[in-house]
Amino acid sequence: MPTSLPSIPSTFALGVCDYPEHVPWEQWRRYPERQRELGITYVRIAEFAWSRIEPREGEFDWTWLDEAVEALADADRLIVMCTPTATPPAWLIRKHPEILPVDAQGRVRNFGSRKHYDHTSPIYREHSRRITTEIAGRYGQHPAVAGWQTDNEFGCHDTARSYGPASRDAFRIWLEARYGTLEALNEAWGNVFWSQEYTAWDQIDPPNLTVAQPNPSHVLDFYRFASDAIADFEEEQVEILRRLSPGRWVTHNFMMHFRDFDHYRAAECLDFVSWDSYPLGHVERYLPEEEKVRWARTGHPDLISFNHDLYRGLKGRRGFWVMEQGAGQVNWAPSNCLPATGAVALWTAQAYAHGCDVVSYFRWRAATVAQELMHSGLLRHDETLDRGGAEVAALELSGRPTDDVETPVVILHDYESLWIYDEQPHSEGASYWGQVMLFYQVLRSLGVDVDVRHADADLGSYSLIVAPALQLMGDERARPI
Amino acid sequence: MPTSLPSIPSTFALGVCDYPEHVPWEQWRRYPERQRELGITYVRIAEFAWSRIEPREGEFDWTWLDEAVEALADADRLIVMCTPTATPPAWLIRKHPEILPVDAQGRVRNFGSRKHYDHTSPIYREHSRRITTEIAGRYGQHPAVAGWQTDNEFGCHDTARSYGPASRDAFRIWLEARYGTLEALNEAWGNVFWSQEYTAWDQIDPPNLTVAQPNPSHVLDFYRFASDAIADFEEEQVEILRRLSPGRWVTHNFMMHFRDFDHYRAAECLDFVSWDSYPLGHVERYLPEEEKVRWARTGHPDLISFNHDLYRGLKGRRGFWVMEQGAGQVNWAPSNCLPATGAVALWTAQAYAHGCDVVSYFRWRAATVAQELMHSGLLRHDETLDRGGAEVAALELSGRPTDDVETPVVILHDYESLWIYDEQPHSEGASYWGQVMLFYQVLRSLGVDVDVRHADADLGSYSLIVAPALQLMGDERARPI
Amino acid sequence: MPTSLPSIPSTFALGVCDYPEHVPWEQWRRYPERQRELGITYVRIAEFAWSRIEPREGEFDWTWLDEAVEALADADRLIVMCTPTATPPAWLIRKHPEILPVDAQGRVRNFGSRKHYDHTSPIYREHSRRITTEIAGRYGQHPAVAGWQTDNEFGCHDTARSYGPASRDAFRIWLEARYGTLEALNEAWGNVFWSQEYTAWDQIDPPNLTVAQPNPSHVLDFYRFASDAIADFEEEQVEILRRLSPGRWVTHNFMMHFRDFDHYRAAECLDFVSWDSYPLGHVERYLPEEEKVRWARTGHPDLISFNHDLYRGLKGRRGFWVMEQGAGQVNWAPSNCLPATGAVALWTAQAYAHGCDVVSYFRWRAATVAQELMHSGLLRHDETLDRGGAEVAALELSGRPTDDVETPVVILHDYESLWIYDEQPHSEGASYWGQVMLFYQVLRSLGVDVDVRHADADLGSYSLIVAPALQLMGDERARPI
Repeated sequence: MPTSLPSIPSTFALGVCDYPEHVPWEQWRRYPERQRELGITYVRIAEFAWSRIEPREGEFDWTWLDEAVEALADADRLIVMCTPTATPPAWLIRKHPEILPVDAQGRVRNFGSRKHYDHTSPIYREHSRRITTEIAGRYGQHPAVAGWQTDNEFGCHDTARSYGPASRDAFRIWLEARYGTLEALNEAWGNVFWSQEYTAWDQIDPPNLTVAQPNPSHVLDFYRFASDAIADFEEEQVEILRRLSPGRWVTHNFMMHFRDFDHYRAAECLDFVSWDSYPLGHVERYLPEEEKVRWARTGHPDLISFNHDLYRGLKGRRGFWVMEQGAGQVNWAPSNCLPATGAVALWTAQAYAHGCDVVSYFRWRAATVAQELMHSGLLRHDETLDRGGAEVAALELSGRPTDDVETPVVILHDYESLWIYDEQPHSEGASYWGQVMLFYQVLRSLGVDVDVRHADADLGSYSLIVAPALQLMGDERARPI
Repeated sequence: MPTSLPSIPSTFALGVCDYPEHVPWEQWRRYPERQRELGITYVRIAEFAWSRIEPREGEFDWTWLDEAVEALADADRLIVMCTPTATPPAWLIRKHPEILPVDAQGRVRNFGSRKHYDHTSPIYREHSRRITTEIAGRYGQHPAVAGWQTDNEFGCHDTARSYGPASRDAFRIWLEARYGTLEALNEAWGNVFWSQEYTAWDQIDPPNLTVAQPNPSHVLDFYRFASDAIADFEEEQVEILRRLSPGRWVTHNFMMHFRDFDHYRAAECLDFVSWDSYPLGHVERYLPEEEKVRWARTGHPDLISFNHDLYRGLKGRRGFWVMEQGAGQVNWAPSNCLPATGAVALWTAQAYAHGCDVVSYFRWRAATVAQELMHSGLLRHDETLDRGGAEVAALELSGRPTDDVETPVVILHDYESLWIYDEQPHSEGASYWGQVMLFYQVLRSLGVDVDVRHADADLGSYSLIVAPALQLMGDERARPI
Repeated sequence: MPTSLPSIPSTFALGVCDYPEHVPWEQWRRYPERQRELGITYVRIAEFAWSRIEPREGEFDWTWLDEAVEALADADRLIVMCTPTATPPAWLIRKHPEILPVDAQGRVRNFGSRKHYDHTSPIYREHSRRITTEIAGRYGQHPAVAGWQTDNEFGCHDTARSYGPASRDAFRIWLEARYGTLEALNEAWGNVFWSQEYTAWDQIDPPNLTVAQPNPSHVLDFYRFASDAIADFEEEQVEILRRLSPGRWVTHNFMMHFRDFDHYRAAECLDFVSWDSYPLGHVERYLPEEEKVRWARTGHPDLISFNHDLYRGLKGRRGFWVMEQGAGQVNWAPSNCLPATGAVALWTAQAYAHGCDVVSYFRWRAATVAQELMHSGLLRHDETLDRGGAEVAALELSGRPTDDVETPVVILHDYESLWIYDEQPHSEGASYWGQVMLFYQVLRSLGVDVDVRHADADLGSYSLIVAPALQLMGDERARPI
């Protein structure tokens, strides 16, 4: 853990996500100056650029990225550099197809988008370390590089868990490390039930494609294992970044209300956490039918603020970023509305008020190609200012909100409870997040500020502890405070 | 067929399903006495206990089961012993993965729950006979053993049909036995349509993954074949039980409104039939939205009584068991409600009034592990009496309802009609059971007692014959009565 | 392109689809005379008869078809002969299973219905040319043969695209022909986005089973490729028919509102287009819940007339057929209603009024076997006249509607726009056809006659051009008219 975090802003700042490799240099070189004019301090780059950095195995092309880094430095912008591991190139996948993940239905998930890797694949992990070492070695000590983002949105597109040979083999090793003996595992899972007892480690598979529902203990351990694999993968990168990029912070951009790994462990090796806020994209997913229209163009305020509170609490101290703040329509929700007038400014102010250090918009300019062609940016496809950009230009937020806001109420939260609850909800439509939000929304409607903390956190300072859907209670958790 | 059924009760009795292998001996040994206190006569055991009986191939551990049998005998309880074939152990599956069933999407269905076998697998059948011989040899003549249950809930979890190599090969043999020549098969199926004519037996596959809908005659024969495979599998076990356990009855626990095999043929080799009654678990499956809430905590009375009438008619004479009577919340329905006060007593009385000999509750004590952790028992997890147990304790039913109830109306029923109707319902939401229940409910609302009988049964005694959705009508069925 | 089309009727005529191979000869021989009595001129035959024409590879049985042709000729009926390629026989599939298509989930789609072929399979294409040559050689110059239908309903049952090795390999070749270099392809698709750049042609797969949504340009080219494959397959047949059946027309029966290939290109090699009109079968697919009941027994008039207008415009001149006109209940819709009294006559008159040359009913007699057992015909299963047949018998339509109807308004339409729009609809439930129908229905409600034409057509004669959901606009399309 680093003791000093030199580049974290002492006052609230803005950022943006940009992709220099998407735009001809003559055109892109004007962007840093425009970003400065718009009041943007941080620019995140290189996020998915592996194929441009290493077009063929072992052949590196740094020219374009060197130029981009220098142009940003020349405009006094600060760079958030990324490990480009979320998009292993075609040459790597074709050479090692065993990197590809396998879904719960047993289908190999193919190249042709992003996140096409099983985190447990030894070959992928080797290449992840290799490309991280290369990029960290090149830019780790560049004065304009403020810090790093690892990979991108762990688990996005249902990739936290893979059910193929790589995960199967790693799961067995993980289980042996956890339980030591098959007797202990059989006892812990209750495998006497339905004669599920194992007599050899290699009889154990991931809990998919079983005839009836799998043993919930089997499922829970598989989720723990897959969550650990993400953290292990991340920690390998962070170890390299700490070594080759001293004095810079490292973060990761988590997602809204995401369920598939233990964010507390994944946050441990980071200096602070970030999350990606797309208020409009989740309206249809989380709200009942009659509420959807009402909040279609603003997002629901409680859904947004809950995630601020959740991620603020992840490391148990103030300070977090919104690494991607949606600033217009997205392209991936069932319906992709335009935000209401003022919504982008409102979301920014809401983040500020919840203790966020930096709000970084996604993305600078709308893409003219491929999957995100219909996703907005601060600039339109023709480089004119879009509605989100115009609101950002007019923003006036400075200083920092005070750190001594009193939050008298804490909601206890942990991912094991989520996994257990959602695996057997006992009532159609019941969900862990639904239970948590029920309490959160009532508290917010009473005007109460709320913290969200892990169930094992020190809770001594709170007047009221709310523990919705807490599933595991040992002596430690049950202790009086 | 046995001529005497020594152990069938002459008066109505109660039973319970219990799993001695799930509970430490020091704890479990107190159960038989508590069962006696609760008025429970029959205790079903060993249902899924293969891995405890035979932990490794050929190594048998009878100690725990011997102790359980003796403890029940000491408490004067009667034992319903099971063939544990519904849960082949991990060592068997890993050695012979070809036992595993394949679903209609072509996916191998894996170990990790129960019912993971293709009934047509020659290797599985060999092991089914082997374990049946072992358990029947050990307990077949024990004085406390009243009778046997074969396997568990044939076809549960969509396992009546498998689409892998074992079933494919067996299907071809079955077809050749049925039709003799490909010309006869092509003619019977109308394969001239769409050039579906076969010129070799090995051109015939199960009717899954076809481009458009498969030939309904192909489907019908595949369903008949799969149904026969279950009956063959069962008959092999029954033949062994008859030989090694003389004077004991054999039954099987069928399911509510189940569709996937011909229960009439499967009942032929049994002394009487049993069924598993979970009134709450099927409310959401069979009732329209507006009716669900009304019956959520009692179940719908007609859905329950229809199954009593159906299973009473399966062998054409009075006398049947409810082998598993739900006595609290289940864990497998979309929503798992608690029964209303008095519901467990009501269900028991309803079974009694419909001519049921024994109502056996599922399960004695709630499981503390694995898939059924959230399923109720007569005892709670902590061994206190749960609401169902309390109602059972208060029951006062004795004697038998008279056998000479007049049932002036008969509903004709057969599984081939069901398969044909549901394969091409001609109207969205139409179903065979829906058609049958329509008439059944009208008749019940008029206060009429109804029998349900096979379309080929002797119908001479009825005043009114109702034949909803009868699909096949030959000379025999069309004869005047 | 043929310059004279000798057999196209100068006055409106009726036809019917019949399957002599389904009915014993002694019974079928009476049909041509009954068809004449009903006023039916054209009889389509041999559509799915491959297994009867060639029961084993290279063994041909023409007897039954010769007899049918002579019987129709004797009754002065005109024959629409078909290439029977929509149903490759079992012996061919078993010998060459690589013909079978693969769905987007990676599952091989099996024999057992129809359309079980990947259009790009070189082996299937060879057999398609071979059987076309055989049947064209035998009947191509028979005086009773008026013309030909190729295959059946291209793309039906989701068969326009296959995702297996045959299509994968052909797609790579198609791409290399289109782009020349990988650099050009990477640039055109914007593969810099998410590091999707290819460095070898064999890194490119069909765009299925990707982790996140595939690149829409990748998808668009795959759709173009699959569409071309259908046209190539068709053109091979047409070339043979032109050579061996001089003076006869060739058509194909397209489907209602079908999406999966470019019908304009597929129409190029045809003399005129036909489509299959099932007004009742699409009510549940295209209409909102509250409209379904209203139109359940007549079909929606705009849905029908739009397809007349669409197919009339496909070759840019008047004259088209309805090759299959539903005349009773179908068997494949979610609910299969009987048509209202008069509906069959109404549909016939509607086709006539929209410039249709021939309405040919599907089918002559209801099938007594296999998949279409529950589909109506003009005759019932017992050969009595069904309700559709009775309406046809009473029809009095003669002459032709005038050709000089003024259609002041044109709706622009093309399949690339459809593919692009529907791949990323940006709003749940939005669809290309929905957009087009919105404008079409408003225009029709104003009493305006509408043409539907390709976006590149000569539009000089129209007063109003409506271009709903037009997605691609180059210089040529943007030119002033």
